[in-house]
Amino acid sequence: MNDDKSKMIGLQSIEFIKPPYIIAEGSIVGKKEGEGPLGLYFDKIEEDSFLGKGTWEEAESELMRQAVKIVMEKSGLKKEDVRYLIGGDLLSQLIATSFGIEEFDIPLFGIYGACSTMGEAISIGAILVEGGFADKVLAITSSHYASAEKQFRFPLNYANQRPSCASWTVTGSGAVIISKDKPESNEEVKIIIRGITTGKVVDYGIKDAMNMGAAMAPAAYETIYQNFKDFAIEPDYYDKIITGDLGAVGKDILNDLLKEKGYDASEQLMDCGVEIYNAEQQDTHAGGSGCGCSAATFSSYIIKQLKDQSWKRVLFVPTGALLSPVSFNIGNAVPGIAHAVMVESVE
Amino acid sequence: MNDDKSKMIGLQSIEFIKPPYIIAEGSIVGKKEGEGPLGLYFDKIEEDSFLGKGTWEEAESELMRQAVKIVMEKSGLKKEDVRYLIGGDLLSQLIATSFGIEEFDIPLFGIYGACSTMGEAISIGAILVEGGFADKVLAITSSHYASAEKQFRFPLNYANQRPSCASWTVTGSGAVIISKDKPESNEEVKIIIRGITTGKVVDYGIKDAMNMGAAMAPAAYETIYQNFKDFAIEPDYYDKIITGDLGAVGKDILNDLLKEKGYDASEQLMDCGVEIYNAEQQDTHAGGSGCGCSAATFSSYIIKQLKDQSWKRVLFVPTGALLSPVSFNIGNAVPGIAHAVMVESVE
Repeated sequence: MNDDKSKMIGLQSIEFIKPPYIIAEGSIVGKKEGEGPLGLYFDKIEEDSFLGKGTWEEAESELMRQAVKIVMEKSGLKKEDVRYLIGGDLLSQLIATSFGIEEFDIPLFGIYGACSTMGEAISIGAILVEGGFADKVLAITSSHYASAEKQFRFPLNYANQRPSCASWTVTGSGAVIISKDKPESNEEVKIIIRGITTGKVVDYGIKDAMNMGAAMAPAAYETIYQNFKDFAIEPDYYDKIITGDLGAVGKDILNDLLKEKGYDASEQLMDCGVEIYNAEQQDTHAGGSGCGCSAATFSSYIIKQLKDQSWKRVLFVPTGALLSPVSFNIGNAVPGIAHAVMVESVE
Repeated sequence: MNDDKSKMIGLQSIEFIKPPYIIAEGSIVGKKEGEGPLGLYFDKIEEDSFLGKGTWEEAESELMRQAVKIVMEKSGLKKEDVRYLIGGDLLSQLIATSFGIEEFDIPLFGIYGACSTMGEAISIGAILVEGGFADKVLAITSSHYASAEKQFRFPLNYANQRPSCASWTVTGSGAVIISKDKPESNEEVKIIIRGITTGKVVDYGIKDAMNMGAAMAPAAYETIYQNFKDFAIEPDYYDKIITGDLGAVGKDILNDLLKEKGYDASEQLMDCGVEIYNAEQQDTHAGGSGCGCSAATFSSYIIKQLKDQSWKRVLFVPTGALLSPVSFNIGNAVPGIAHAVMVESVE
């Protein structure tokens, strides 16, 4: 270790001198996500959309509670081994998180970055571990189709029509344990967090809350572009560059924006929102969205590919649309934000 | 510097080996706060409750925008000198923050801890600086009386009656610059962040959203108690232990809870919500509340006392009530959280 080497890279990035490990991952999703193309990868598929609770909000808290339990059990850790929990969700005042995690009695940094929240959670988690502030932390987010529709759009009972650019909020939660030390198992392949690129609020003046892919694509573009510049790399440094929930529409816009800057990432680009559903068969239009979309996909399918070394280097870029029903109703635009995490598989 | 020394202290605390400096502070408040006992300490008092905007939410964003401008101007920094902005507010999906800070083009970690948010912002800011991830960061929060009433309680036009335990949301914003290096001025007294104690979600089952002091007092108690234990200190280590917005009711409960554990902190306890208004003359009942209450008080009056060395050691403990209108309406309790920051004046 060279103490003189700066961790600060370029304008917006950090390179971890002692890269933290992701030693466990846990995921839970709803029935629809379980029936999608990634169904086999999730730890748990919950058939009851209320998860035995009386309200959608309590159901979402239960998703988080179960994701914590799964990842703790898989890691073999006790709650006192985890020094911080970093988490958030889409509901006003983060109630899914507050009520979902309170029984675990772990110091909490509540965060909000809309659907980019898992990128922010892993970023802050890695900072805490690499900086010597914690040996192990837990990063988590969730979303629920019904609580999000109630929060942001229309109550389900209105049965309003959805435009083809609209996305479908994923019912799910994903959690990872970030650790200073390698996992205790004898697995040869380890997953490390090499670095991060932290996003800014990016506002291109998009005003259509039903087309969040278009609102978030510029933010994803700016963060990915900055990652290339800060680390002086080309798209093919990565096996995959995986955005959170741009959906089919936003993914095309992102590809075009990068091409305009001379970066052809067509081979690398992938989007959790596109992967998680079979859009035609499942009638999900532009794809999945919500904090739980990227979190559950990362904590299952993406980690699995890295463990198998099908991919060795992934840029994970959850993307958030910074709107609220109030900001939309008073006529504000929908700015975006995207936080990138460089995840690698090493032997 | 001894690299072998752990920064992790006890169960929930961090002691900074190289304590970061607070090199500048900025505050802006509304007319009512300007007329209160701390009026002389704020950088700016805004007479127009709309701050020239068309909605309460945009007015709150404007408070943040101005607080950033004040602290940047006082510090002499340019926006490219600030590597991260850590901030949040009480509005759903943090819209005051997203729209308030977007023009500054600084990487953002959006956070939410209800009215404890300034404690969380300074904590994460100090971690980023001390861990070598940034040379300078900006921590900020805001609240606005009218946007908060609209969000959490009743539209002002309903003119509903307020019980005497109810608090009054502060219109204001406070911001500080946290730096690796000392301020460039030749001032002999420097303000440092010695350590932090990060809170957990604490739920005593309080269900009265009009009595947030009682809901938050147990969280303040648990964080302060843990701070004493982790650092093996007594209340008189501090000149002041300053909670965020417990108000008169919550402050008494906190004092009693500490006494039950054998700690008499009667001399040290102070509450931003109690200090910011003259409750009798200003009809503010239990006192001020909101993210802006502790942030504006810290970024003005508290820093001034430390600079003058009237106080040398302060435990700043913003306190948050983790409720939303939805969680309240579905019958959930109001859990609390409190994040403590050890701020000291050194020569």
